[in-house]
Amino acid sequence: MDPAQRLEAIEEIKQLKARYFRCLDTKDWDGFADVFASDARMDMSGEVKGDEPGAGITTGSREITEFVRAMVGHVTTVHHGHTPEIDVTSPTTATGMWAMEDTLRWPDGGPLATMHGYGHYHDTYEKRDGRWRIASTTLTRLRVDVEAVPRPDA
Amino acid sequence: MDPAQRLEAIEEIKQLKARYFRCLDTKDWDGFADVFASDARMDMSGEVKGDEPGAGITTGSREITEFVRAMVGHVTTVHHGHTPEIDVTSPTTATGMWAMEDTLRWPDGGPLATMHGYGHYHDTYEKRDGRWRIASTTLTRLRVDVEAVPRPDA
Amino acid sequence: MDPAQRLEAIEEIKQLKARYFRCLDTKDWDGFADVFASDARMDMSGEVKGDEPGAGITTGSREITEFVRAMVGHVTTVHHGHTPEIDVTSPTTATGMWAMEDTLRWPDGGPLATMHGYGHYHDTYEKRDGRWRIASTTLTRLRVDVEAVPRPDA
Repeated sequence: MDPAQRLEAIEEIKQLKARYFRCLDTKDWDGFADVFASDARMDMSGEVKGDEPGAGITTGSREITEFVRAMVGHVTTVHHGHTPEIDVTSPTTATGMWAMEDTLRWPDGGPLATMHGYGHYHDTYEKRDGRWRIASTTLTRLRVDVEAVPRPDA
Repeated sequence: MDPAQRLEAIEEIKQLKARYFRCLDTKDWDGFADVFASDARMDMSGEVKGDEPGAGITTGSREITEFVRAMVGHVTTVHHGHTPEIDVTSPTTATGMWAMEDTLRWPDGGPLATMHGYGHYHDTYEKRDGRWRIASTTLTRLRVDVEAVPRPDA
Repeated sequence: MDPAQRLEAIEEIKQLKARYFRCLDTKDWDGFADVFASDARMDMSGEVKGDEPGAGITTGSREITEFVRAMVGHVTTVHHGHTPEIDVTSPTTATGMWAMEDTLRWPDGGPLATMHGYGHYHDTYEKRDGRWRIASTTLTRLRVDVEAVPRPDA
């Protein structure tokens, strides 16, 4: 690939991830599903309590969308991505790391009042039928702060 | 436009919006006015209380600067923009969406103590006389948290 | 430089600064040292209390790494960079400004509980032996909020 083609791929991948964040926070679930390859893999095992093998790991763009929607569809979420390090490894494959911050506020009756976290996404991307999509994504954390639900008697 | 020209326009627009944020937060009002087209339109109707038609909508780079300066010129502000989705629609026109977060702290005597918000800018850009400028900008919100001024008797 | 070469330099510098942030927050000190020119200069004089001349100013990639590691090696840190304004001034020199936000949490016994700040980096970059590196970096602040350590009797 010549420099302009490589830079074009990087910009397309940045905008792909931008749609991931925007569709997630505006609850545009059709748009959200569309950023993933049909056989994409999401590893949120660090986010999910529980010891069963494979907990928090989801495969398939539709399954990922259903998993995420069940977790935060009713939650006011803000997810921001920063300083991407995109490496285009071939005309149809790339890797990326993103710094991230997320701020969640549950409605009354939720398991928590708020959560505020920081970490990194570790992604792979694939270009199929002329469009880049997220092929895999794993979230690691630097720090998570939670605010518990006030007790009724507090 | 060839790929390099399109990427160059995208980078120029990213730096244009970067100046918007930096000049706003460092109170460089000449620099701030300069990022807008002379007939630019700013829609902050979601930020402004009041039912009168057109409240929060301002037209003209000078008028926008005066409007913003009156609102936050004396406030410690931090505005950050994230994951731009810039679409160059012709050699002289483009659209853009930006995720955003702002943190404001009023001096003593202000209407609030702090405000912390999250949302998206929906922009259009135009290139005139060889330079990109913001032609219109509208802010929508995901969430706003305010901290009221402590009451004197608290 | 032609447009594609200039854009390539800008993207390389963005990823250079991305490594600065990521290595700092994941405590990858070899990676951190590697983003600086061997004779780089870091000006954190605004961060350091004390009146002695040169306080907070450090020269040399190894010395910078030791200085930063002593300050925050044991602290949970999050540093995010936003909306870079990179200006490539020659094939081997560039300047850059970045909006920034940092969130620090000290372990028990630290001088503070948490610090949350906002500001701008003012950088210069140099390309040597085919790679861009940070030649100088100065941090200015818009706002810093600190949370003191709770007193034992509180």
